[in-house]
Amino acid sequence: MKIVIFLYPEFTALDAIGPYEVLAHAPGVDLVFVAKEKGIVVADSERLKISVDYGFDDIDACDILLIPGGQGEAPLCYDEETLNWVRKMHATTTYTTSVCTGSLILAAAGILNGKKATTHWAAADILNEFGASYQAERWVEEGKIITAAGVSAGIDMALYLLADMQHEDVARSVQLAIEYDPQPPFDNGSVAKSLPHVHEALSQMFEQKMRGRHNAAKAA
Amino acid sequence: MKIVIFLYPEFTALDAIGPYEVLAHAPGVDLVFVAKEKGIVVADSERLKISVDYGFDDIDACDILLIPGGQGEAPLCYDEETLNWVRKMHATTTYTTSVCTGSLILAAAGILNGKKATTHWAAADILNEFGASYQAERWVEEGKIITAAGVSAGIDMALYLLADMQHEDVARSVQLAIEYDPQPPFDNGSVAKSLPHVHEALSQMFEQKMRGRHNAAKAA
Repeated sequence: MKIVIFLYPEFTALDAIGPYEVLAHAPGVDLVFVAKEKGIVVADSERLKISVDYGFDDIDACDILLIPGGQGEAPLCYDEETLNWVRKMHATTTYTTSVCTGSLILAAAGILNGKKATTHWAAADILNEFGASYQAERWVEEGKIITAAGVSAGIDMALYLLADMQHEDVARSVQLAIEYDPQPPFDNGSVAKSLPHVHEALSQMFEQKMRGRHNAAKAA
Repeated sequence: MKIVIFLYPEFTALDAIGPYEVLAHAPGVDLVFVAKEKGIVVADSERLKISVDYGFDDIDACDILLIPGGQGEAPLCYDEETLNWVRKMHATTTYTTSVCTGSLILAAAGILNGKKATTHWAAADILNEFGASYQAERWVEEGKIITAAGVSAGIDMALYLLADMQHEDVARSVQLAIEYDPQPPFDNGSVAKSLPHVHEALSQMFEQKMRGRHNAAKAA
């Protein structure tokens, strides 16, 4: 069971590490990180540097492809080398998955055309513009494609995926091993639950940054 | 606001990356990863390699120290160089924090003597043997020390910490930004909630591995 997590400059670490922690220790799993070229990949905080052992040229097929989101997905949505590699991998997978704005890359590759999918709440319009049909769900399964909502949703999605591909007891065992019994001190994790002024401020910030990055990438 | 996350061989990635994702993007925060010596640190899966820019000699003080758990904490509990650095840092902090078995290192350094604290559920006895008083809580605050339960508990603890050190709205904004509205597909994240046979099998595995590592480290 080969699992490939694609990393790229300015990815969001928890998008990748949440599912990684759920899947990497499962029996029979061979999980690897892949970047366009092997070497150091810096996350969106600029403070976390991951040393990646494999480049696009090293990986031809996998059982599960996982694409995290981040602040750096925009240029990749217009980068044919990346989109071609994603299409090539998708043709070989049992599951093709994404977390957060990682689904924008899947959509840009044409993989989500006319399909239900999800992404970070602030990227819903952009996902639709790339041809998918945004759903405000924690994760969305369409055929072999599973897309998860923003950042932390990858943990929930990966537990579901692990149960689906192995056995529910394996997923339950991982949940207990990582003591995933969430008790956030606030209940502000979705647009519907957020204090309105918190949502409004964040929404404006995301709209400006995400739109700006996608407009810049499109023009480049 | 300088935040230092200590990484070491065979740390558990989500222990570190959960709190990192909550804290790294907050206003005024300067978050760095530190290892005994700078360079590549490999997580417990052997599949994730983090390139760390700072060694013990580079960091003399910080506002927040965070020690993740992992499968590699045992040797550090008997390593005077590490324990001395932890004590030195603790003397400078506003908060000293841990996730999972990271609290065993704090306890081994004498910082939790007679204090209430938590850790991964499977490490409760070992924590007590190091002089702390284990509490089955998501996180435990004693003075300036905050210890979190296993792996994913670091996310909840970091949201609490962020609200405490800045403002509740900042923590709520981060919660919405990382869409932390947990919806695990199963309710198996604590000993009390687990299917008994899942807990029993995992408990035996942990008992054997954790005890084995601590016995070996003590003897070395």
